[in-house]
Amino acid sequence: MKPATEYFSGSDPVLIIDPPLQHARRDRNPQGTVLNVDGVTIGGPEVVVMAGPCAVESEEQILATARAVKESGAKLLRGGAYKPRTSPYSFQGMREDGLKLLAQARRETGLPVVTEVMDARHIDLVARHADMLQIGSRNMQNFTLLEEVGKCGMPVLLKRGMSATIEEFLQAAEYVMNRGNHQLLLCERGIRTFESSTRNTLDLNAVPMLKRHTHLPVIVDPSHGTGHWWMVPYLACAGVAAGADGLLIEVHRNPQEALSDGRQSLAPYRFDSLMREVRAVARAVGRE
Amino acid sequence: MKPATEYFSGSDPVLIIDPPLQHARRDRNPQGTVLNVDGVTIGGPEVVVMAGPCAVESEEQILATARAVKESGAKLLRGGAYKPRTSPYSFQGMREDGLKLLAQARRETGLPVVTEVMDARHIDLVARHADMLQIGSRNMQNFTLLEEVGKCGMPVLLKRGMSATIEEFLQAAEYVMNRGNHQLLLCERGIRTFESSTRNTLDLNAVPMLKRHTHLPVIVDPSHGTGHWWMVPYLACAGVAAGADGLLIEVHRNPQEALSDGRQSLAPYRFDSLMREVRAVARAVGRE
Amino acid sequence: MKPATEYFSGSDPVLIIDPPLQHARRDRNPQGTVLNVDGVTIGGPEVVVMAGPCAVESEEQILATARAVKESGAKLLRGGAYKPRTSPYSFQGMREDGLKLLAQARRETGLPVVTEVMDARHIDLVARHADMLQIGSRNMQNFTLLEEVGKCGMPVLLKRGMSATIEEFLQAAEYVMNRGNHQLLLCERGIRTFESSTRNTLDLNAVPMLKRHTHLPVIVDPSHGTGHWWMVPYLACAGVAAGADGLLIEVHRNPQEALSDGRQSLAPYRFDSLMREVRAVARAVGRE
Amino acid sequence: MKPATEYFSGSDPVLIIDPPLQHARRDRNPQGTVLNVDGVTIGGPEVVVMAGPCAVESEEQILATARAVKESGAKLLRGGAYKPRTSPYSFQGMREDGLKLLAQARRETGLPVVTEVMDARHIDLVARHADMLQIGSRNMQNFTLLEEVGKCGMPVLLKRGMSATIEEFLQAAEYVMNRGNHQLLLCERGIRTFESSTRNTLDLNAVPMLKRHTHLPVIVDPSHGTGHWWMVPYLACAGVAAGADGLLIEVHRNPQEALSDGRQSLAPYRFDSLMREVRAVARAVGRE
Repeated sequence: MKPATEYFSGSDPVLIIDPPLQHARRDRNPQGTVLNVDGVTIGGPEVVVMAGPCAVESEEQILATARAVKESGAKLLRGGAYKPRTSPYSFQGMREDGLKLLAQARRETGLPVVTEVMDARHIDLVARHADMLQIGSRNMQNFTLLEEVGKCGMPVLLKRGMSATIEEFLQAAEYVMNRGNHQLLLCERGIRTFESSTRNTLDLNAVPMLKRHTHLPVIVDPSHGTGHWWMVPYLACAGVAAGADGLLIEVHRNPQEALSDGRQSLAPYRFDSLMREVRAVARAVGRE
Repeated sequence: MKPATEYFSGSDPVLIIDPPLQHARRDRNPQGTVLNVDGVTIGGPEVVVMAGPCAVESEEQILATARAVKESGAKLLRGGAYKPRTSPYSFQGMREDGLKLLAQARRETGLPVVTEVMDARHIDLVARHADMLQIGSRNMQNFTLLEEVGKCGMPVLLKRGMSATIEEFLQAAEYVMNRGNHQLLLCERGIRTFESSTRNTLDLNAVPMLKRHTHLPVIVDPSHGTGHWWMVPYLACAGVAAGADGLLIEVHRNPQEALSDGRQSLAPYRFDSLMREVRAVARAVGRE
Repeated sequence: MKPATEYFSGSDPVLIIDPPLQHARRDRNPQGTVLNVDGVTIGGPEVVVMAGPCAVESEEQILATARAVKESGAKLLRGGAYKPRTSPYSFQGMREDGLKLLAQARRETGLPVVTEVMDARHIDLVARHADMLQIGSRNMQNFTLLEEVGKCGMPVLLKRGMSATIEEFLQAAEYVMNRGNHQLLLCERGIRTFESSTRNTLDLNAVPMLKRHTHLPVIVDPSHGTGHWWMVPYLACAGVAAGADGLLIEVHRNPQEALSDGRQSLAPYRFDSLMREVRAVARAVGRE
Repeated sequence: MKPATEYFSGSDPVLIIDPPLQHARRDRNPQGTVLNVDGVTIGGPEVVVMAGPCAVESEEQILATARAVKESGAKLLRGGAYKPRTSPYSFQGMREDGLKLLAQARRETGLPVVTEVMDARHIDLVARHADMLQIGSRNMQNFTLLEEVGKCGMPVLLKRGMSATIEEFLQAAEYVMNRGNHQLLLCERGIRTFESSTRNTLDLNAVPMLKRHTHLPVIVDPSHGTGHWWMVPYLACAGVAAGADGLLIEVHRNPQEALSDGRQSLAPYRFDSLMREVRAVARAVGRE
């Protein structure tokens, strides 16, 4: 499939971004930005899969899951140590202990680690244990946090806010880049709509629309985008077919015992099937 | 990829449909319904593409477009004779003259014709010229119209309302089937959300969710689902990867001169490229 | 409060309506249209309340409710004989029998009757028994039905579609007026949003926005707009404070036994309280 | 009008909040919480109006506006020193200099000051100059910020997130209260929907729904809720009629020159008219 940028010169009216992007806009890097996260490249020909549990829960859990996802072909390990939860009475994550377990999983598997940072005051701590900082959906417009990760030297994964427009998403990226950090990855994870049978409505329109307007790589999170584990393989393949540079997938060694998001987490053997299916689709659209 | 029905026995809570479906529900036909529209099967292993202009505009336009889409591999011809338009002052379609041109295009190309019926009083007339009746998004809950197409003996294409939930969509299908017509095809065509850079938000989550709850075949309309012709190939491939049984694509011999929806219509040579890409993805997910 | 039209000359950018309205637009009748429904004026200084059950269920039910709402000050009787229901297996209304009971209630109470018409083929029948035809939300873009009620000589109540923009609502009004019927009343009844604690989100912004762009009177339906009977008095008062010319309220002699919409129906004694509260607010904003 | 709490014993199913609220829930304080902000009570019989510019721009601007809104009857001064803006290239506020000007305006007029805090690291500084801390919509789920304002001893104004459900809003309140701060005020300010003629859709359903489930006072912001200054008086009156305990209104000495949100800001003479209209509606619903 031709890249979305081929269509730039067309007469179709596109998204008006005002004030204009200075750093994120496509023509700053027409070939597209390729990130390097501890040796793993994102934004090149390969479709990169990041997988792991919603939350780090125990040494045994994170290590077993990390080994399983690596074996199936994941290139990065995801896992939450700080968890933004709707209620203060829900499990908030293992915090620093969780970070240490993630670092241990990296040592044992070699998988670089991506994990969420919720507060500018935690950046140094999280950066010591992780390879990529995630800004979650609820913080997409936490502008002082965006500026702080813009000043640190690490790759950043920025998730779309659940009611953010494409323009707002790109402007949030601009906050990070404007502080000097161009190692930025965007993630479509579903938006909030009237439809209630799924947790969110995965907006795959966003993939070509983003790629037309920015040179940054774009990945898709079908776990949050659907909220149902059995839907994840379909939307993972759809995301790759829509042009995504990678996927973010929740995998839990035992989804029924997960402390959070068990319903949308895949067991390792199902994740292994998903990887085979995703590989076939990636090849069909000219990716690796 | 395993069909969504494989996951039926899972513990994941699914959509509650109340009152329950009597005819449309999956377990009435676990293998899935296969429609036959004048020799073209929909719902079988093959991914079926229906293509043509938003509106019939002239003999030359519809014939040229019909020949082009057939050559590229489309199996049905779509085209509007009666057009539901937001304003009474916009082009309303060629009406009966448009129907006659569609019938002529069918005679010349052999492609069965699908076209919209907006009023129960037009059903007989439309049925004389077409092979499949389309119920448009704005009429998804026009219950007396649903009942009338439920009484005619022709295959029906039912498009999801732009703010209809999955449950409401399935209940609308039930209205048709309850009157005896089981030749029914469902079409996801994008829902109305806050995002304004695209005409609608194509909800590909709907594809596996529908297929889990009904035995009816499901197709995707990426033209209305995006509103931008250059996005259509990406979302067409994504729809097939998500499990769709077919696609509905707007093609116009000369999009810049189209009387309606020119922005989302593909020129024939671009549709030809799309078909090649779609074929590759279809094979990757085990379809033909 | 100054009428919204006072602000016409302001520099604030307003709604762009394209193609422009010919009949509904404000400057066609800057003083505002006043309807006359069998002697009841709508759009003048008085705030008019229409009340009655969601559906006609029996002679006893409709007569008792009609007498009660008249006593509390309602000026029109509402009641459904044809009910658009999501499922074909839900109560569809008493149909012609329901129309006859409405006509009987009018004879006994003198209240003009407003009731829904769902199909162009029923217009003559409904028109024989009712004083005002209601086009429901699901039919706001049933364009052939709009054209037909545009040809009949009766006042029409047009409800906003649940995902219709203000512009689409005004264009739908234009369909009716373009066929010659200028006796048209618009009703805001709540839109579909992500919020799930209420049945719809009552959009009171729509009241001044509509009144700025059209000369047609505008009423508010807080029963459908909230879905909870105990919220109705608050939003009824809010609707009047926002500038509505009237209210449409569901009242049932015994809400717990209602065949439809019991949750959002007020018992007569509560409706009587509501009327007192509404009168106080109406006076506070300079209405009667 | 009866308070929403009167309806507690009704059979209507209400919002399910899970895990349950510990501090914010209505039955912790059935009479309703009354806040005291430097002598001004919020949540009692009086409807309290907070007014001022979107952003502090100069000494002359904030002082002139403060004097004007005090004269018209406002009880608190609002004004932004730290401004969350979609783009990093838009005016970000005068920051510490803005705080000093707000403190000066308070000294000259006696009006307590409410201003936004965007970052936990600024709380001490903002608290030295303000009387009430505002948490903006974009930070409604910035949980570490909620916890920090929960630890400071000052009254907090929490605005609803633009796509937050009522339940999420109440859970966010719970984060603040769970850290010991019960001086909390909730503000409905419009939600994001498909409707594009207004900046947001003011959700006045939220007022009785919130008041039924929490003892905290609730105010309404019709400036952000509409985005059009000429709509503000209508929705201000509607908010009071719906049961709000107060209003938050943007007033700018010269809206056409405002550095932000000029379109939704009222000139002082219009604000003065609004106050008269609001007083009449407040009396009509039994408030002062």
